[in-house]
Amino acid sequence: MTDFQSWARAIQKQMEDVLDRTLPQTNIAPQRLHEAMRYAVLGGGKRVRALLTHAAGEFCQADQEKVNAAAAAVEMIHAYSLVHDDMPCMDDDDLRRGKPSCHKKFDDATALLVGDALQSLAFQVISSDTNTGDINTKQQLAMVHLLAIASGSRGMAGGQAIDLASVGQSLTQTELEHMHIHKTGALIRAAALLGAYSASAVDTARLHAIDHYAQSIGLAFQVVDDILDAEADTATLGKTAGKDAYSNKPTYVTILGLARAKQLAQELYDNALEPLASYGTEAHRLQQLAQFITQRSF
Amino acid sequence: MTDFQSWARAIQKQMEDVLDRTLPQTNIAPQRLHEAMRYAVLGGGKRVRALLTHAAGEFCQADQEKVNAAAAAVEMIHAYSLVHDDMPCMDDDDLRRGKPSCHKKFDDATALLVGDALQSLAFQVISSDTNTGDINTKQQLAMVHLLAIASGSRGMAGGQAIDLASVGQSLTQTELEHMHIHKTGALIRAAALLGAYSASAVDTARLHAIDHYAQSIGLAFQVVDDILDAEADTATLGKTAGKDAYSNKPTYVTILGLARAKQLAQELYDNALEPLASYGTEAHRLQQLAQFITQRSF
Repeated sequence: MTDFQSWARAIQKQMEDVLDRTLPQTNIAPQRLHEAMRYAVLGGGKRVRALLTHAAGEFCQADQEKVNAAAAAVEMIHAYSLVHDDMPCMDDDDLRRGKPSCHKKFDDATALLVGDALQSLAFQVISSDTNTGDINTKQQLAMVHLLAIASGSRGMAGGQAIDLASVGQSLTQTELEHMHIHKTGALIRAAALLGAYSASAVDTARLHAIDHYAQSIGLAFQVVDDILDAEADTATLGKTAGKDAYSNKPTYVTILGLARAKQLAQELYDNALEPLASYGTEAHRLQQLAQFITQRSF
Repeated sequence: MTDFQSWARAIQKQMEDVLDRTLPQTNIAPQRLHEAMRYAVLGGGKRVRALLTHAAGEFCQADQEKVNAAAAAVEMIHAYSLVHDDMPCMDDDDLRRGKPSCHKKFDDATALLVGDALQSLAFQVISSDTNTGDINTKQQLAMVHLLAIASGSRGMAGGQAIDLASVGQSLTQTELEHMHIHKTGALIRAAALLGAYSASAVDTARLHAIDHYAQSIGLAFQVVDDILDAEADTATLGKTAGKDAYSNKPTYVTILGLARAKQLAQELYDNALEPLASYGTEAHRLQQLAQFITQRSF
């Protein structure tokens, strides 16, 4: 088994190729829209969701080509959500991964359409029979359905709505968790489950293990994000992270404090690995990925 | 066979029920998002696309329940496109069907998420195995794929992008047609084809007839819209419709003049019916619907 860094880099490279091939080329009309779609998706990000799909797929012995289609669809949904999230009527962010965000590089109307078209393309890719080999069609239909639910008003889009409503509010930990389970957790969970569904037959026990793993790791991902934000504040702004308490956007650090947030991240990491323990080295990649997602903070 | 008006009213009522049942209720969180989604979809419009799906389904002897799921998905895609189209960064329309548009009734961020979540819900509905009875799953997967392509950057969303780029431009008739084939034509075509795909087995000859019919009727729909706009101008603004030539947004009337636009609508109506002629009274509903779509102008 190759080491984790080499594996992750290989998947990231492979995903870039798959996304590059799948996105419409810029010489196809409407060219500006296609250019903006490619700008929003290509050349950036750690592809954590794609790594999850691939690690789960490997655990379930799925064919890599089938996993690629599912992972590409998930990355497109994620990319569309970032484009819409950065727009002036949402978070109004001018930068994304150090580059101008899509609406700054192009314009608001184009960014709106980029998100819309990327969502369509995700469902086009995941429903394509050429991209998914010999998965039986009933299973593939279930994958489409799962991705749709994860993306919609009871999943990611709903999480954005809860997030909007929570600005300036003082949330409990339960309410914050409720928001994150939808906003980022639903798609992370779908990413992992789609890896399991990419196997020629679904192994129910492994599917359930992946489900528990993904739910914990999805929350851990967010807790670590909040810790990193707070620590960046401490380092770069010279203020104590704990003073972020009850700032405009509630975070795990503002609600729990830094020390308990770190403890929670560790607990979620442990919870994620528990259902995989009985699989021994077969679950090694999922374990490494959990570590990769949470290691940044401790 | 019931008369057209009674048939259309029955379908419209039925679609309202299906959409009402399918949209999340307002007592389910996130409640404001669900309220806004229902506001955007329910209680309005002629449901032309759903009528097309049903007329095509009837022509292909599809089960009404299966057609309902496909028609609901198409109406959700259409509703989402109107919500996003009305937003300030697009057409900035405050009114939709005489009511405040979604972003005016709620807010821009909610309207953005309403559109996003409605698109997801459309794919959830059309990939659901409870909603579509015993259509074989390969065929259902093809329906998902067809709807995704019709909605995306080479279909409806792409048409919006072409429309944005054409404001203030002097287009040829070919360029205008190219825009409409994408912006409204792709989803109208998909609406009709999904009716044919809702049959337990696809009748290829009828599918091709429906395809030709829908492409002509999609363009006729737009030509008639432009004629009605121009004639409303003449009546209500007291100016000659022909003077709209080279106004901010190119239309069939500004490019062709009113008389030739009416002639084109008639030609498209005739073209739409031609592939159905050999089916006699079996195609009666599709013929009536073509008349309903185009009769408003002549």
